[in-house]
Amino acid sequence: MSYPKKVMLREVGPRDGLQNEPVWLATEDKIAWINQLSQTGLSYIELTSFVHPKWIPALRDALDVAKGISRVKGVTYAALVPNQKGLENALEGGIDEASVFMSASETHNVKNINKSTADTLQVLKQVTDDAKKANLSVRAYLSTVFGCPYEKRVPIEQVIRLADSLFEFGISELSLGDTIGAANPVQVEIVLEALLKRFPASQLALHFHDTRGTALANILTALQMGITIFDGSTGGLGGCPYAPGSSGNAATEDIVYMFEQMGIETNVKLAKLLPAAKWIEEKIGKHLPSRNLQVYKSSL
Amino acid sequence: MSYPKKVMLREVGPRDGLQNEPVWLATEDKIAWINQLSQTGLSYIELTSFVHPKWIPALRDALDVAKGISRVKGVTYAALVPNQKGLENALEGGIDEASVFMSASETHNVKNINKSTADTLQVLKQVTDDAKKANLSVRAYLSTVFGCPYEKRVPIEQVIRLADSLFEFGISELSLGDTIGAANPVQVEIVLEALLKRFPASQLALHFHDTRGTALANILTALQMGITIFDGSTGGLGGCPYAPGSSGNAATEDIVYMFEQMGIETNVKLAKLLPAAKWIEEKIGKHLPSRNLQVYKSSL
Repeated sequence: MSYPKKVMLREVGPRDGLQNEPVWLATEDKIAWINQLSQTGLSYIELTSFVHPKWIPALRDALDVAKGISRVKGVTYAALVPNQKGLENALEGGIDEASVFMSASETHNVKNINKSTADTLQVLKQVTDDAKKANLSVRAYLSTVFGCPYEKRVPIEQVIRLADSLFEFGISELSLGDTIGAANPVQVEIVLEALLKRFPASQLALHFHDTRGTALANILTALQMGITIFDGSTGGLGGCPYAPGSSGNAATEDIVYMFEQMGIETNVKLAKLLPAAKWIEEKIGKHLPSRNLQVYKSSL
Repeated sequence: MSYPKKVMLREVGPRDGLQNEPVWLATEDKIAWINQLSQTGLSYIELTSFVHPKWIPALRDALDVAKGISRVKGVTYAALVPNQKGLENALEGGIDEASVFMSASETHNVKNINKSTADTLQVLKQVTDDAKKANLSVRAYLSTVFGCPYEKRVPIEQVIRLADSLFEFGISELSLGDTIGAANPVQVEIVLEALLKRFPASQLALHFHDTRGTALANILTALQMGITIFDGSTGGLGGCPYAPGSSGNAATEDIVYMFEQMGIETNVKLAKLLPAAKWIEEKIGKHLPSRNLQVYKSSL
């Protein structure tokens, strides 16, 4: 089996991980954690979300976080931006890249964003336009690509149709999400085979949840198909509150461990990432699902 | 990618899972659990270990367990048998298959069995001979194939040499163990490439631990290499007390979930296996690492 020599990781813990935590993490703790992550070698950190605080109260301090962190050269600091108002705040916070998001499933999109996919596309077109005018690159998340908690299977034609629109708007990268953590390697192969006929691997990222233990097997398959960009959340922090039964982003350290052992360069130092995972586990005050974090803790 | 249509699973939870548990599980509970497992569609269950109670006190009721279970037609009931005395008890218990075990690493073998690999081979030759005379098939475990907690890398030549001897003795199947749960897909490919030049895939099983999250990715790789026999422990129960930092056999239900979703037949019904995982978690009284068990519990 031939594998690429290096991959790129997108750290989504401070946004995707923290957004559903019922515990309030103080702004200075968020900043301290992001500053730790900035020292690990990660080249991309999604800081926060500029969504209205009514929807994600855990990240209501988005602007303070974005303004408070110590930026490290070479790290792209991104933030989720749902609309024009969010973009204004994100620009004030000095972020480097805007992430926009929608669901591939109509029902999940309505439940999550309170809009049809058609209406969401119009908003994302405007945000992408405006972000690009402000010299930001734009990344899009397409969730429920591998299954929807309401509609179950999501037709690949729907994924392609939405991806077409998003790339037309000018996004630079599309992150395909297994929101409910139910994907399997054969499905990953089928979905990617269809998408790679239309879009280059260099513009596709995979965002797996480890809900049912298959995240690293799915990542391996995507890697075998030529994908080299993967989302992870340090500690395995996160999930989706609107997707019943879902939990646990793939832990960045588990992804890094596997790649490192396979001889694939991630540029991330586990010796720095693991303490950052332990730190956030202690702050959040609950057992996180990362496997390597447990090994690390038992080694101390 | 082309995959086999079906695989065989070897359930090792009652032996490999329970052997290290500090909590005493009552004999009738062991029997009740094995009886549940017998109803899941599993065709192979390793019941217990006929090792001297001094070494594995948690399984000191091996004979009562072997005699007490309700056997289901089509299920092979195996037990670990270290020596002649163990074999006598196993035969009295009416087991179908004897498992013998050793380490590929010299140091690990000495620490685990208190003998050199050369001396262990002599014992296993005798046990295999005697077991076959009593019409039992014999399975061998070779542990630390993918790494040793003391010697780190274990040379593939050492693995081949020991495998050669064991097959010469007349074992029907060799289970290759990732005792410390540190294997990665590239390593699995390299090790299997070497072994498959010499031994048929139908006689090799893979025994992964999910200590660092890579078990299912490793299983996927082995499957891609033609391996169709995998060990699992319901709930992800187990580990190795002699291997520092090791913990958690690959959970049978996580393996079954992935295969089932990939369209690969396991013959195991998750609807019956998951309650058996929940049952043992409650009896043991600690959180087990299985991912699908957590999803199942949150669905109740």
